[in-house]
Amino acid sequence: MATAFYDSLRPLFRPKSIAILGASEEPGRIGGRPVQYLKDFGFDGKIYPVNPNRETIQGLPAYASIKDIKGPVDQAIMAVPARFAIEVAEECAAKGVKSIVAFTSGFAEMNEEGQAMQQRLTEIANESGMRILGPNCLGIFSGRDGAFSTFSSSIEMGRPREGNVGIASQSGAFGAHIFSLARERGVGFSYWATTGNECDVAFADCVRFMAEDDGTDVILGYMEGCRDVERLYDAFEYAHAQKKPIVMMKVGNSDIGAHAAASHTASLAGSDDVYEAVFRRFNVYRARTARELVDIGYACSFGQYPKGNRLGIVTISGGAGVLMADAAAEVDLDVAPMPEKTQKKLKELIPFAGTRNPVDTTASFYNDWSLLTKNFDAMLSEGNYDSIASFFTSFAYSDGLTQNTIDAIKPIREKFPDRPMALSIFGKPDNLRKFEADGILAFEDPAETIYALAALNRLRIGFEKALPKPPAIPAKTPKMPAKTLNEYEAKRLMKRAGLHSAEESLVQSASDAAAAAAKIGFPVVMKIVSPDILHKTEIGGVKLNLDSQAAVRKAYNEIIANAKKAAPNAKIDGVLVAQMVKGGGETILGTFTDPTFGPVVMFGLGGIFAEVLKDVTFRVAPFGVREASQMIQEIKGSAMLKGARGAPPADVQVLAKALSALSIFAVANADRLESIDINPFLVLEKGKGGVALDALLVPRQG
Amino acid sequence: MATAFYDSLRPLFRPKSIAILGASEEPGRIGGRPVQYLKDFGFDGKIYPVNPNRETIQGLPAYASIKDIKGPVDQAIMAVPARFAIEVAEECAAKGVKSIVAFTSGFAEMNEEGQAMQQRLTEIANESGMRILGPNCLGIFSGRDGAFSTFSSSIEMGRPREGNVGIASQSGAFGAHIFSLARERGVGFSYWATTGNECDVAFADCVRFMAEDDGTDVILGYMEGCRDVERLYDAFEYAHAQKKPIVMMKVGNSDIGAHAAASHTASLAGSDDVYEAVFRRFNVYRARTARELVDIGYACSFGQYPKGNRLGIVTISGGAGVLMADAAAEVDLDVAPMPEKTQKKLKELIPFAGTRNPVDTTASFYNDWSLLTKNFDAMLSEGNYDSIASFFTSFAYSDGLTQNTIDAIKPIREKFPDRPMALSIFGKPDNLRKFEADGILAFEDPAETIYALAALNRLRIGFEKALPKPPAIPAKTPKMPAKTLNEYEAKRLMKRAGLHSAEESLVQSASDAAAAAAKIGFPVVMKIVSPDILHKTEIGGVKLNLDSQAAVRKAYNEIIANAKKAAPNAKIDGVLVAQMVKGGGETILGTFTDPTFGPVVMFGLGGIFAEVLKDVTFRVAPFGVREASQMIQEIKGSAMLKGARGAPPADVQVLAKALSALSIFAVANADRLESIDINPFLVLEKGKGGVALDALLVPRQG
Repeated sequence: MATAFYDSLRPLFRPKSIAILGASEEPGRIGGRPVQYLKDFGFDGKIYPVNPNRETIQGLPAYASIKDIKGPVDQAIMAVPARFAIEVAEECAAKGVKSIVAFTSGFAEMNEEGQAMQQRLTEIANESGMRILGPNCLGIFSGRDGAFSTFSSSIEMGRPREGNVGIASQSGAFGAHIFSLARERGVGFSYWATTGNECDVAFADCVRFMAEDDGTDVILGYMEGCRDVERLYDAFEYAHAQKKPIVMMKVGNSDIGAHAAASHTASLAGSDDVYEAVFRRFNVYRARTARELVDIGYACSFGQYPKGNRLGIVTISGGAGVLMADAAAEVDLDVAPMPEKTQKKLKELIPFAGTRNPVDTTASFYNDWSLLTKNFDAMLSEGNYDSIASFFTSFAYSDGLTQNTIDAIKPIREKFPDRPMALSIFGKPDNLRKFEADGILAFEDPAETIYALAALNRLRIGFEKALPKPPAIPAKTPKMPAKTLNEYEAKRLMKRAGLHSAEESLVQSASDAAAAAAKIGFPVVMKIVSPDILHKTEIGGVKLNLDSQAAVRKAYNEIIANAKKAAPNAKIDGVLVAQMVKGGGETILGTFTDPTFGPVVMFGLGGIFAEVLKDVTFRVAPFGVREASQMIQEIKGSAMLKGARGAPPADVQVLAKALSALSIFAVANADRLESIDINPFLVLEKGKGGVALDALLVPRQG
Repeated sequence: MATAFYDSLRPLFRPKSIAILGASEEPGRIGGRPVQYLKDFGFDGKIYPVNPNRETIQGLPAYASIKDIKGPVDQAIMAVPARFAIEVAEECAAKGVKSIVAFTSGFAEMNEEGQAMQQRLTEIANESGMRILGPNCLGIFSGRDGAFSTFSSSIEMGRPREGNVGIASQSGAFGAHIFSLARERGVGFSYWATTGNECDVAFADCVRFMAEDDGTDVILGYMEGCRDVERLYDAFEYAHAQKKPIVMMKVGNSDIGAHAAASHTASLAGSDDVYEAVFRRFNVYRARTARELVDIGYACSFGQYPKGNRLGIVTISGGAGVLMADAAAEVDLDVAPMPEKTQKKLKELIPFAGTRNPVDTTASFYNDWSLLTKNFDAMLSEGNYDSIASFFTSFAYSDGLTQNTIDAIKPIREKFPDRPMALSIFGKPDNLRKFEADGILAFEDPAETIYALAALNRLRIGFEKALPKPPAIPAKTPKMPAKTLNEYEAKRLMKRAGLHSAEESLVQSASDAAAAAAKIGFPVVMKIVSPDILHKTEIGGVKLNLDSQAAVRKAYNEIIANAKKAAPNAKIDGVLVAQMVKGGGETILGTFTDPTFGPVVMFGLGGIFAEVLKDVTFRVAPFGVREASQMIQEIKGSAMLKGARGAPPADVQVLAKALSALSIFAVANADRLESIDINPFLVLEKGKGGVALDALLVPRQG
């Protein structure tokens, strides 16, 4: 049964009646194109052109106003100038129109006046329950219903084939680009929606609708930014629950890219690292190029996912086999050798063949195509590969080679319906369609054939895993006080939050220092604590390895003297006396506030790893220990924590707990916290825990 | 004037007369196809089918034997079974045939007998001067002459267009694949050559011929291995001197890939890292996929190279602009902002435009295409971009949009003939050809448009630089003695080769140790020297920071006692007393012997950088200081040597000299040296040099 959410968008995505406000007699004009498309492509609902100046539009009776239409209107296309937009929208709401597709531009993308008009559109939508797509959008279409409510010229070439792939795009022109590429690729469409300025219906809503829609199996997305994170999470979660892959392009990676994104849309592009983390969390496949987006979407549309990473390769060229094996190694597919006995069998079939895997058939089967059938059969029956990639170069130029190949491998395709079979083959599009009709995937480039199979496997793994469930925020999570915290206070607060630090005391005299040290146990380390002194080491404000009360007393006096000398007016809170912790590995734990996603936690190894090599990773807070462990594993230098170079393995369990605790603290204090730096957090060897050696909490400004 | 090398291959590449040995009446058979192609595609030289059983072949008079042909024969195609191959080759040599294209298979790729037959073919070639391509190859064609001496079905669709791109491939099937892709891409061809088993003409020879040929501007290569490195270097060098780009695919990167390569061809695939280094050295562009190979080759065929890395981007979609800017940042193209005054001007032309760069014209010019012309003009005249990338999505589906776009930008294309203009556009191939005819590049994917411009710029930079000239090997370069060297001897030898080590002495008594230490100066470090003790530290064989004669004496006795205890039968050469060098950064310098390329030098930072992060780089030896400096810069952690985290910059000059010296030493001792490990080589701060703290030289086996 459809949800209330689905029902609210159904008139927009699957209208039974469409009015065109500003309908034009000229099929080339913005108000004329949708009329033409709806007529020509066989929309089987009602079409109501609205134009006060004409009796008919493109042969259909015209209405002077939306009010004059007798029956219900599911969707009204707004193709009028901006100055009429509000009036028209109000009339639609009064009439009880269920949704508007607003082509009209001149809103938030233009100036402040436009911004105010757009705000009014949002209000109309909220007040009436009428859903509004746009304004400033290129429209929407339903391949399922023949409802083509767009003025994009990209569909001029004919009605797109209906299929199970939906496209949602924040950019109209780029949305049309993706659509055209995908059509060229042989893909069929359930829906295509461009969201423009998103006064009401957001990108996330389109994804969510398609995730719920029973005619959509694959969702291709193009996004530039996000204003409502909860809606995005909800859409991703819903799609994951339905095991519907989302393949996403998100632009604005580079600094210049981010700049252009900010100037281009009214929305704010979040930091790319954070988007990356969000996509990973929800098993959203991120494509780097339009080609990859369409390629992976195409692959998903077949609905076959490998059950594992064992890949069998069959080629008519040894070189192509090597190349495909190289590509497989890049993306962690296992080109496992064939069993010896199967190799022997193949060798008998085809004397020249390389039989190990990749299998190189050479051109041996040209005279007996059953050899190819036997070859594929042996690989799947005895080699137990989860998927097969095969190289047939430009066979599809020839109708004869195409038919021979299909006849040879189709029986095996049918015998093993759950093992994806992807060919590197090109030629006439009609011939490629024949392979696809039999459930065989076709790619031009041999390496990209492999990448697509790897993507399918990765998505399958993601679907089998439950999404990480954000932990509840315990009521006892400590709150950050209103005042600025010094290092001692910050570490005590972090300890209450769940991040241990070394045993330590803040003292204000040499004798207290000596007493504290005696209690803590030698050796100790001492540090000046002052909000006005940042570079403690440089001014002589840090003393290490102190191993007696006398040494501690002397150090206290020296530290105070050094501090007074270096910064005579500094406020001095005292001197920290702390247990000297030896060994272990330095890590950096931090949080910051992303304008889109809120508190985000960063993790990296200390020193050059984070600072020089940028080997860090991110998660949106809050998250549990499982996600934290994942973070620790995904940095490049993670081997360092597993005991590289003879060092003992580190206590990654405690490290993971610390990261999760930090994420919970950051969320509980999101209203008052800007960022946290725990640098370094020392991870000791397994079983011995870890300690925050320093902590800096920056309160949120204003 | 053509070189003797060129002249020797001219009859093979540009024959005026072709005999087909084993010519067939059936155009579908291996011996029939070339006859058909030569006839149908208008070869204007002489065609001599040879077949003892027929009067005519496909309408041409047939000859019983090569001997019966009256005139000279430039090229004989061998399409006879392997058992006749030698006899036929000998007859050709006797007749004075200039070259053979040997389709025939069943040689070294088959078994030892075949190997012997192939050896005989090589001898016939060498004795007669007749050049032999193959055996076991798919043939060769000259687009310039209409000489299509191949049985590949990939040219069945019609005579390929003549053009300036040559293809050389070690794989027949994959060579055909590349050819088909490139033809689909609109490329025209000078030559296409597949080298099979390379009994005489090697891949490198084909590259060299095309580099010298005045009809070839771009060379696409596919290689799996190389037997004669000098010929390959020569070909690369020649192409560089002619400023002809080589775009190369080399397979066998992964372990499984390398394995398949070894089993597939008779040649040995070298380590991929070393190939990478060789390609970099000669400005050979390495493509990762067949698509990239063809894309970059296509781009090069226009002969326009950007003069710098400033990139202007114009799009009809803000989103595409962001995406292209992201791609530019990835490949180090500079999307520099437009001058303010030009932005103001554009803003007046097109009110909605994003004007900074990327320029987003929106759809504003649809009613006035001169706006597009003005836009491009302003960017090149005032923005001074070295190249322009522009996004026109699927415009090429429409003849009208195609013509409008060409009319609008062609004048600017002509005004700035040296600034490449690349469009992301797709649609009807015929329309894409129109852009290309006007010197405008067309790519489907917007990101790949950018990557191609970056590749052109990288190639241009490479052509402007002289190739690194390998240094001469000085006669005084020290020789490695026949015996195995202990650490002390190895470091002394390395010092003579030009790599400094700390001042040190090898001693055999406690009192000698004390005396040596006094001479060197305190503190010192002491180490056991024994060929039988590898883990010196673990057995207590190393003592650091010894600061008095008494401490040195004590240490000597302890070290000897520890060594005897741990390894009672070990041969002990003595104890090393060395200056204790402090500070500096650890690096690793090494050499090894690549089976294809000979001595290779490796460089990396010490410790985890090399071992965990695999952050190392390679060069084929010998090389000079400039190349060595390049190596130091190209590792990811090179910032560490420039003074990261407050450390002083390291003495990279001395480091570079050490690397170059090591490369010279390795070449001078190539006959007796297997590998060298200098680990660590300590680089001190700028001006203070560097020292080898350990050295291990492994002699070549056997």
